Formats: sequence, structure tokens, C-alpha cells
Amino acid sequence: MSDSVIAGRHAVKEALSSDADINKLLIQDSVNKGQIREILDIAKNRKIVVQTVPKNKIDGMTDERHQGVVALASPHEYMPLEKLLENIEGKQANVVILDGLEDPHNLGSILRTCDATGFDGVIIPNRRSVQLTDTVARTSTGAIEHVPVARVTNINQTIDRLKEKGFWVAGSDGKGAMDYRDLAADVNTALIIGSEGKGISKKTLEKCDFILQIPMVGHITSLNASVSAALLMYEVFRKQNPAGSE
Amino acid sequence: MSDSVIAGRHAVKEALSSDADINKLLIQDSVNKGQIREILDIAKNRKIVVQTVPKNKIDGMTDERHQGVVALASPHEYMPLEKLLENIEGKQANVVILDGLEDPHNLGSILRTCDATGFDGVIIPNRRSVQLTDTVARTSTGAIEHVPVARVTNINQTIDRLKEKGFWVAGSDGKGAMDYRDLAADVNTALIIGSEGKGISKKTLEKCDFILQIPMVGHITSLNASVSAALLMYEVFRKQNPAGSE
Repeated sequence: MSDSVIAGRHAVKEALSSDADINKLLIQDSVNKGQIREILDIAKNRKIVVQTVPKNKIDGMTDERHQGVVALASPHEYMPLEKLLENIEGKQANVVILDGLEDPHNLGSILRTCDATGFDGVIIPNRRSVQLTDTVARTSTGAIEHVPVARVTNINQTIDRLKEKGFWVAGSDGKGAMDYRDLAADVNTALIIGSEGKGISKKTLEKCDFILQIPMVGHITSLNASVSAALLMYEVFRKQNPAGSE
Repeated sequence: MSDSVIAGRHAVKEALSSDADINKLLIQDSVNKGQIREILDIAKNRKIVVQTVPKNKIDGMTDERHQGVVALASPHEYMPLEKLLENIEGKQANVVILDGLEDPHNLGSILRTCDATGFDGVIIPNRRSVQLTDTVARTSTGAIEHVPVARVTNINQTIDRLKEKGFWVAGSDGKGAMDYRDLAADVNTALIIGSEGKGISKKTLEKCDFILQIPMVGHITSLNASVSAALLMYEVFRKQNPAGSE
């Protein structure tokens, strides 16, 4: 499941103008940029990375007539945010927002936990974040087929949109004021998990209704991101589905 | 932190006769086996893998005079099981047993969670299991320095030894009879986590005092192993250290 290659000026222009998830545009170095101005403009507009490469690189990627232009499209489908919101309208719903996750193993693991806890979807930014790659698909052990993933341009605007829809937003941070086990979760909950290195960005942290902390009694200062995510997801799950003894 | 190379017949024999953690023995193919009979006997006795290789392979590994014999030693130290048991004698203690874990990312993540929850140690088998490799050290983000890891020949004998010491043994399995949230953990607990592919082996499962199940409401049948481990470790932690609201 590597990237799909879309070859030729017409096909690429169509793909760029549609909802297709284009990861990258490759342009042959000898192509006259003036001739593909329209393609370059749409790509710029959609903030798609454009790379100039020698002819033999593109020749090696496709047997089709490429005219010096190919686009690499993601083979895994994303769900538009508004479609995700429409699907969960009117029901108790929970989502996870991943603010800059980098490790595909972690995203794969989080997709498994989403499926297991009945979370309704995952939201990732379309830049500076792991995307739905082959490694994610493999480490998700099939969960990628069951958990909708929405890709958004701006996480903070997405949080505002979720708040409009009645979600409470809970971030996870080592300096959080609330023990995660005190989370009230009989509401629609959007959990935010930060990146492996830097956690949740400052602006996004300011948008949280709650900042949750997972108690840690040892020497290290953070858990693996997919572990933090799972502890919080299962905390939401148990508040909504208590065990016999609770 | 790749394997340390021990070169030469005398040095290798000494290392084999000590407590050093030898991962593998490499023997030059032209060496007269009769001359190194004693070394081969100790290696066989300790169940160390012996590999016959051409001279240039060994030449490339060391500048020392190797006499056709090198041993590869683990650069990360393990704690003998009895030393671990001695350290926790008389106090409330919890350990994790990993029954054939394969993925170094998972072991690194589990070491982080052990440190965070104050678990006293990890026990792994010395065969058919990930060992303390560079990737484990890196993904543990330093936890490897704080969490003792014991390496044992036989997991089932180790469980018997832990039971003698007053531990209750809880395994994790999709078909477990007990919801993990119902675990009573005001006791010394040994958690068993199975391998990524096959879970806990049948014989080991039979030795468990409890078999815990993590509820899953979706399509996939298992969580990531380090996620399962973390949910169970934090369950033990919260039973022993309740939150304000619990």
C-alpha cells in the first residue's frame, strides 16, 4: 500500500481539483513551469509539497505517459471532518485529536485502541504529523478499516468546531491540574494527545476545557504517546461503561 | 550500544564461565573444534547460540587477536532473579512478566510504564523474546536505567518461585474470565503479558491465579501489547493509590 502514483498533466490537475489526498507533486526539472502554471497554482493553494526531480526518477515511478508531472496520493482514505460530525450528530460520541504525532507505530496502536473503546474517530493535522502510511496500516492490525480518520488544516479551528457541537475538550499534559481518573465523561469528549517530543502545543493547550495529568511516580517524565492515549480512552470508556465492581 | 565483542579463547571462556550475558558465540569455520571443546561445552550447557562463520567476518568485528573465537555480550545489564526478589523482600511489590514479547518498541514502552507506576521489575525469558537492545534502550527514554530486568530460562518455574514469595499471578487474555477493573491489587502482583502474535502460552496461562480481560467493543481482537500492559499496570497502581474521587 505505498502511495498511488497519478501521472500526466490532465490526471494530476483533476486529482488536485478533487478531494483526493495528494501528498506530494513531482515535477520533472526540464519542464517549462509556464506550461503547468495552473497545476502549480492549485498545489500552492492546497499547500501541497512540490519537488523538482530528474526525468529518470519519474520514469521509474510509472509506465504511463507522465508529461513530466506526477502526483502521489494517499492510498488510505480520510473522512472529511464535517462528514464525521454528521455521522455522530445526536449521539454520545468521543474523538481523539492528535496534535503532531510523529511515530506511525503510535498511530497504529491508537487506531486499535479507538476501535476497542468505541471511539468515533481520530483527527490529525495535514502537516507536521504522521499520515495514514503503510506502517500505520500494518501496526493498526486492521483497525484502520474501522476507525474514521479526519485530516484538518488547523487543529485549533477544529477544536472550536467541536465545542460548537457540544464536545468537552480534554488535553493530556504532565503539568495538568486534574488527575485523569477524576475526568467526568458522561459527555461528548474530545481527547487531545500531543506529539512524542513536545506534547500539546501551547495554543492548543489553552483551548482545553480540562488538562489531565496521568500520575507518574518514577524518574522519567512521560509515557509513550499511544499508552497515554489508551489510558485516557479507557478512562472515558469506563466512566461511560462501568465494570460490575464500580 | 551494539553488542560488546569479547575476542580470544581465554577471554571467551572466562566470560562464558562468569555471569556475563552472552548473546552469541561465533566460531571461525577453519578452527579445529577439538581444540575449543571446553568452550563449546559451556556454551551448549548455557544454551548459547553458536554460529560458524568465515574468518573475514570475525576479522571485521575486532582488532584483537581472536584465535577464531568471539562472543557477543549484551551491553545492558540484567539483574539476576534472586537479586530482584531479595530487593523487594518484605515490601509490597509488583512485577511484569513478558511471555515472548518480540517488538523492541513495546519493551521500551513497557519499561517507561513500569518506571511511571513504580513497578519493581520486568522478567523476560532468555530465548524467543526481545532482549535489551539498542532500540529498547532508545524507546525506553531512559527508563532502562531505572527498571531492573531479570532474564530467566523458564517462565513457568519463575512463576512458581514468585508464588512461593507470595505473589498473585494475573495474566491478560482476550478470553479471560475477569474484567481487569475488578482486579484486587492490595497484594503483590505479577502481571503476565503475552507475545504480540500469540498471547500467553497455554502452560503459562494455566499457572495464572486470575485471567484478566480488557473489554473491547470494536472489530479487532487485541490491543497493542504495551497498551495492554499499561492498562493493567495502571489498574494495579490505582488500586494501591486511589485518586481523590475513588
